[in-house]
Amino acid sequence: MQIVVPVDLLEPKTRLSDCLSRDERRSFAKAMLDDVLVTVRASGHEPLVVSTTPVDTSATVTVDKRPLTDAINETLQELTLPAAVVMADLPLVTSSHLQTFFSHPEDVVLAPGLGGGTNAMVVRHSAFRVDYHGTSFRDHLTTARDLGVTVREADSWRLMIDIDEPDDLVEVILHGDGSARTWLLDRGFSIDAENGRVSVTRSR
Amino acid sequence: MQIVVPVDLLEPKTRLSDCLSRDERRSFAKAMLDDVLVTVRASGHEPLVVSTTPVDTSATVTVDKRPLTDAINETLQELTLPAAVVMADLPLVTSSHLQTFFSHPEDVVLAPGLGGGTNAMVVRHSAFRVDYHGTSFRDHLTTARDLGVTVREADSWRLMIDIDEPDDLVEVILHGDGSARTWLLDRGFSIDAENGRVSVTRSR
Repeated sequence: MQIVVPVDLLEPKTRLSDCLSRDERRSFAKAMLDDVLVTVRASGHEPLVVSTTPVDTSATVTVDKRPLTDAINETLQELTLPAAVVMADLPLVTSSHLQTFFSHPEDVVLAPGLGGGTNAMVVRHSAFRVDYHGTSFRDHLTTARDLGVTVREADSWRLMIDIDEPDDLVEVILHGDGSARTWLLDRGFSIDAENGRVSVTRSR
Repeated sequence: MQIVVPVDLLEPKTRLSDCLSRDERRSFAKAMLDDVLVTVRASGHEPLVVSTTPVDTSATVTVDKRPLTDAINETLQELTLPAAVVMADLPLVTSSHLQTFFSHPEDVVLAPGLGGGTNAMVVRHSAFRVDYHGTSFRDHLTTARDLGVTVREADSWRLMIDIDEPDDLVEVILHGDGSARTWLLDRGFSIDAENGRVSVTRSR
């Protein structure tokens, strides 16, 4: 099964601007992409990166400057189904969690992201179209139900925790084991468990 | 299997103080507890509430004013194992997700919370002791491994999303279907999807 991994490394992760410079955000987003590509391959599938800019990676890369929704819908129409879409900012997912996710038999399998997005999907029905605008998870559920196809909501925190905000870095340090976690530790990030829910601090 | 549900309704959910008064925080925490108790019963098990204060609920309530760690360790020693602990601020978990969680066969099954806590556990080995201080999830994993018992990390976002901060209310409105969601909607909360990751707004 081909696994589409969309990524935008031009101006990524703007909500991390308070703790990372622009160059750092690009570098960190690339580290997360690398983790996802390793995980996809380890799950037994081949990643296809759909990027707004050329990316230096060993995977096949299609450069597509259009909005995410248009790029993914066209890509899915060109691929042999089933296919999957897995976001590039999910450094906590492991190959066994991906295998579980891919093994669900429904026509459309959806994994929500924090805040209502759609972090991963398997598409087995050719009439399904994506729309990533707004709280896309609910919209994708509705689209699948309106088509009358079978649909599953996956219950996986490793697919839900997309890394967008400083608090999300806590989860990378606590639960990660790939290049994104190493990237953060190398730059002085650590866990601060002093006040309420833990946060990250940066020493340099 | 007996399901221990610890709750503190005296000064609950202080990180929601910016959007909820003290009375509202108590009322909202009670609504979440009610959701969890309904879910536990629907999963086929009996809840035992361990509370710092008397609570008006149909479940059996043990009042225990000690810190959470002491109260849970003593409760687990008094119960016939296996037993489980499920936190009272998990209004998004459903009975089928709980059934899946309870069905894992390991001696210790752990569900992490956002920020490194432990939101739910199944204990089948009498030597296991809890320690909820700090980033307890990693500590509980270590404790179980040091005991040489089998352990599983559950991958469930419905068990991971504990409701502590304003952003967490987004998930209740998006994915909930019980009294906690109704409580929020009745008080004017709604989803604001204008800027970046969605947030909640309050109209009254």
